[in-house]
Amino acid sequence: MQLVIGNKNYSSWSMRPWVLLKAFDIPFSERKLRFDFTPGSSFYQAMAEVTPAAKVPVLLDDDGFAVWDTLAITETIADRHPELAIWPRDARQRARARSLCAEMHAGFGSLRGLCPMNIEADLSAVGQRLLASEPKLRADLARMQAAWEEALAASGGPFLFGAFSAADAYFAPVVMRITRYGLPMSEPCQRYLAAMQAHPAVAAWVADALAEQDFIADDEPYRVSGGPQGQLR
Amino acid sequence: MQLVIGNKNYSSWSMRPWVLLKAFDIPFSERKLRFDFTPGSSFYQAMAEVTPAAKVPVLLDDDGFAVWDTLAITETIADRHPELAIWPRDARQRARARSLCAEMHAGFGSLRGLCPMNIEADLSAVGQRLLASEPKLRADLARMQAAWEEALAASGGPFLFGAFSAADAYFAPVVMRITRYGLPMSEPCQRYLAAMQAHPAVAAWVADALAEQDFIADDEPYRVSGGPQGQLR
Repeated sequence: MQLVIGNKNYSSWSMRPWVLLKAFDIPFSERKLRFDFTPGSSFYQAMAEVTPAAKVPVLLDDDGFAVWDTLAITETIADRHPELAIWPRDARQRARARSLCAEMHAGFGSLRGLCPMNIEADLSAVGQRLLASEPKLRADLARMQAAWEEALAASGGPFLFGAFSAADAYFAPVVMRITRYGLPMSEPCQRYLAAMQAHPAVAAWVADALAEQDFIADDEPYRVSGGPQGQLR
Repeated sequence: MQLVIGNKNYSSWSMRPWVLLKAFDIPFSERKLRFDFTPGSSFYQAMAEVTPAAKVPVLLDDDGFAVWDTLAITETIADRHPELAIWPRDARQRARARSLCAEMHAGFGSLRGLCPMNIEADLSAVGQRLLASEPKLRADLARMQAAWEEALAASGGPFLFGAFSAADAYFAPVVMRITRYGLPMSEPCQRYLAAMQAHPAVAAWVADALAEQDFIADDEPYRVSGGPQGQLR
């Protein structure tokens, strides 16, 4: 089984199933396609070869059968591994976890649009500016905080539904955005951010992202150079 | 169990779980919240009372436990009814069905943005204009056609994965958009559009939508009046 992903520093969608597979010790090989959003690029060609949807991430069986889109990959992993608590075992916790993931999948447009994932970067100055100027970003953060707090209070933590589950894998890129843009969160959410960053699967992705050192201008609305000391525009 | 929905003529997200529940004869009561996108409206207040995500549709258990977002509602219905083939029984067909639904959930932005669902309206003149001027709409349609054709060829039809499944419920609003805006599709897809419109659950929603006769200006980028003969701008 192979997971086809994009750049680890930038690809929030790729991070989700990669972290999920790692967290549950499910063996897979990784194939990274370097982002290149030039029409007709080898990146687009390679994606089109693995799936007609032409998007990363893609889960490929050994015979080439493709499952795409993070939610479908997550459900398919859960489907194939009933012995693992990919989703919470409690039916209502599971329903709530799916509600939060689906809400994330199609919502939080301002957080996603204004604060693209950039793991190696310190964008806290940008985050402060955006917080002041973008009421919709503040609304997205308030909704995220309320959703996390409700789940953490019900489960007792340290992860959203107690033990690490697909819901946490789904919010891993959000943890990266919030910490890199220095966005404020309540005390319970701060503890969650810390637990997530300390999780070995999240930490492994972050280490790979930091080692990547690949500046993709199309994913850099706020910087003119890469690396942890990358200069802001 | 109650399903909270928006206007049947316009609410593409609401149509999905409603059609799914009807198609599988799962009993539920319906509560319709009339769209009113004025800040602080009774519509927003009522939504906020049933779910913190403040969006329709919402599936409510008798004690008020809420499941929101169409994909989570779909998975939760499948979870609660293992005796029904909500998803295809074959593991790979199921994975593919989930890929298509998740792709729909977050993608096809031009089709969704330019061709909002409006069941009672004949918008074929608008559709012709959009087809000529919007290459991204043409790309969305080409991708939709390819995805449908692949599934229909593999299953033999009449629905995407043979018998009616969650995937068809998920594409029911797309069927409405394509037929109302008069968008061109291949012969196999035309047969699918016909099968979908003839399905009793889809037909029941359409009948309710036609009886609604409620003109919501915020959902009408192309008309100045409602009804089947509603005047175009």
